[in-house]
Amino acid sequence: MSETGEEVRTVNQTVVPIAIGPTGHTPAMLEKAISDGGAKLVDLDAARALIWVGSAAEFPQRLPETVEWVQLPAAGVEDWFALGVFDRHPGVRFTSAAGAFAASVAEHTLALLLAGVRYLPEHLRATSWRQQDFFPHVGTLRGKTVTIVGAGGIGRALIPMLVPLGAHIIAVNRSGRPVTGPDIPDTIETVPAEHLAKVWPRTDHVVVAAPATADTRHLIDADVLARLRPSSWLVNVARGSLVDTDALVTALTDGTIAGAALDVTDPEPLPDGHPLWSLPNAMITPHDSNPPQLRFAAFADHVAENVTRFVAGTPLLAPIDTDRGY
Amino acid sequence: MSETGEEVRTVNQTVVPIAIGPTGHTPAMLEKAISDGGAKLVDLDAARALIWVGSAAEFPQRLPETVEWVQLPAAGVEDWFALGVFDRHPGVRFTSAAGAFAASVAEHTLALLLAGVRYLPEHLRATSWRQQDFFPHVGTLRGKTVTIVGAGGIGRALIPMLVPLGAHIIAVNRSGRPVTGPDIPDTIETVPAEHLAKVWPRTDHVVVAAPATADTRHLIDADVLARLRPSSWLVNVARGSLVDTDALVTALTDGTIAGAALDVTDPEPLPDGHPLWSLPNAMITPHDSNPPQLRFAAFADHVAENVTRFVAGTPLLAPIDTDRGY
Repeated sequence: MSETGEEVRTVNQTVVPIAIGPTGHTPAMLEKAISDGGAKLVDLDAARALIWVGSAAEFPQRLPETVEWVQLPAAGVEDWFALGVFDRHPGVRFTSAAGAFAASVAEHTLALLLAGVRYLPEHLRATSWRQQDFFPHVGTLRGKTVTIVGAGGIGRALIPMLVPLGAHIIAVNRSGRPVTGPDIPDTIETVPAEHLAKVWPRTDHVVVAAPATADTRHLIDADVLARLRPSSWLVNVARGSLVDTDALVTALTDGTIAGAALDVTDPEPLPDGHPLWSLPNAMITPHDSNPPQLRFAAFADHVAENVTRFVAGTPLLAPIDTDRGY
Repeated sequence: MSETGEEVRTVNQTVVPIAIGPTGHTPAMLEKAISDGGAKLVDLDAARALIWVGSAAEFPQRLPETVEWVQLPAAGVEDWFALGVFDRHPGVRFTSAAGAFAASVAEHTLALLLAGVRYLPEHLRATSWRQQDFFPHVGTLRGKTVTIVGAGGIGRALIPMLVPLGAHIIAVNRSGRPVTGPDIPDTIETVPAEHLAKVWPRTDHVVVAAPATADTRHLIDADVLARLRPSSWLVNVARGSLVDTDALVTALTDGTIAGAALDVTDPEPLPDGHPLWSLPNAMITPHDSNPPQLRFAAFADHVAENVTRFVAGTPLLAPIDTDRGY
């Protein structure tokens, strides 16, 4: 009968055993996530859950019968569907990492949008004070309308970051059903994608955060760019194909819009010598809005949260609906 | 008996008469602020309140007895004290513009801090994709500690902008009394300035937003810079004298910290050819975080709010305490 809290807990509770796979991959950050979540790391054959950090192709053909839950490392799980992983394990609950990676991309989006609005590209080129020249170009998001095309994880993570800046936000999604969430105010305006054309006259800045589909290809084209403002910034953190690159280069050259910040491009990678590299009002980040070290830290946080929920028996984050296919 | 709502309101209510001075200055934005606030613009001799957009030296020697309230255009009102304006009008309530201009500076601060953390200066110089080179340098504010030295208007406006990014915030003020406000969470850590030295080992990034006094001169010196991290960004939006420029140049050259973003410099204006212009990890904005057009719009918003309060008989924003001297 130890008097320390730690040992009493061990005596009174069965600590949930969880494995990490594939074998040989036990990153310290995930070990910590498991213990932070109130569970303990064990080998797969004794585990009630499995945190998987490998690919779909490496996933075991059969799992021990003790395994009730598997956490996958990706937000999109098409590969696991394609390889029949879920069909092979009908009694197991799977969760994805959907939502875990959105915060870093949203932060990157905010950095790019603010850099544009605050005229940082020209500031960074300056080698002389010239305050009067800069004054008229320094803008604000306060009172301005930011249209976020796509209200998935990234868009929903971005909204609470824009609210305290005093921006008016229009969220565009397929259904037009109001975008809601614990950190999303009721006042957010949601517009269905079919009415997107009506939104442009009211839009100051555009964030593209929608999936790449046949419907969204060149969603931002010459017509849309012409309806924006000479003070408008376009930020694309989704996929390059959503923006018509040639039309964008023309709009940036002509000053139809103030500038564009692209974490994704078409073509991607953007080839050396492409006009976007030299346009003074284009900012390119090479699809690095969620680099490996931030992705991994975010995954570890997601695992810790889901382990906590698994231990407590409450609903897990990002359950995969194997019937619906996502 | 008109049937329009507008005229019925005129008949049923005495609309509060407010003047703008000096004579000849009636910017449309302020006229709108007065009518948005539920009052009407009149000449000074018929006014119950005066919105003053001139200097302290131009202020009238005597005001009509009808004037109960005067809104001044500045946040700091030392000149009005020095010229005895308040003493000449003992029965009149004065309000300053304190608080009205902080939001734009806070937004600028956030833009600079995020640009640093997301490695934008190097991104903007790039003319090639080089994704793998960029990956390790892209940081996040999530889980990082931002120390805000000075919890006046700017610091308090910045806190709610940093919270949704997942930063831990340490606010440093003179008293150490917890920083509070309608948009400031209870969880914000406040540290008195006398314990500043204890804060550096826990600090990832520093925002300087304190007044320039004898005590704060070179508050950021070689010793402090040495206690920060190779990943730390320093943002100064207060006054140039708070940072030891020579020590900063050395720290930026040596990589002691990741970078510095300065809206204020010492000397200011920063002379052509100064090393800060050419250091790749220095961002200079020429004291333009609150340019005239944003300042004026913010003042108009402040006036509209105070007119609304005056009409409703509720407490005004930024009352000047003529006994205390601010």
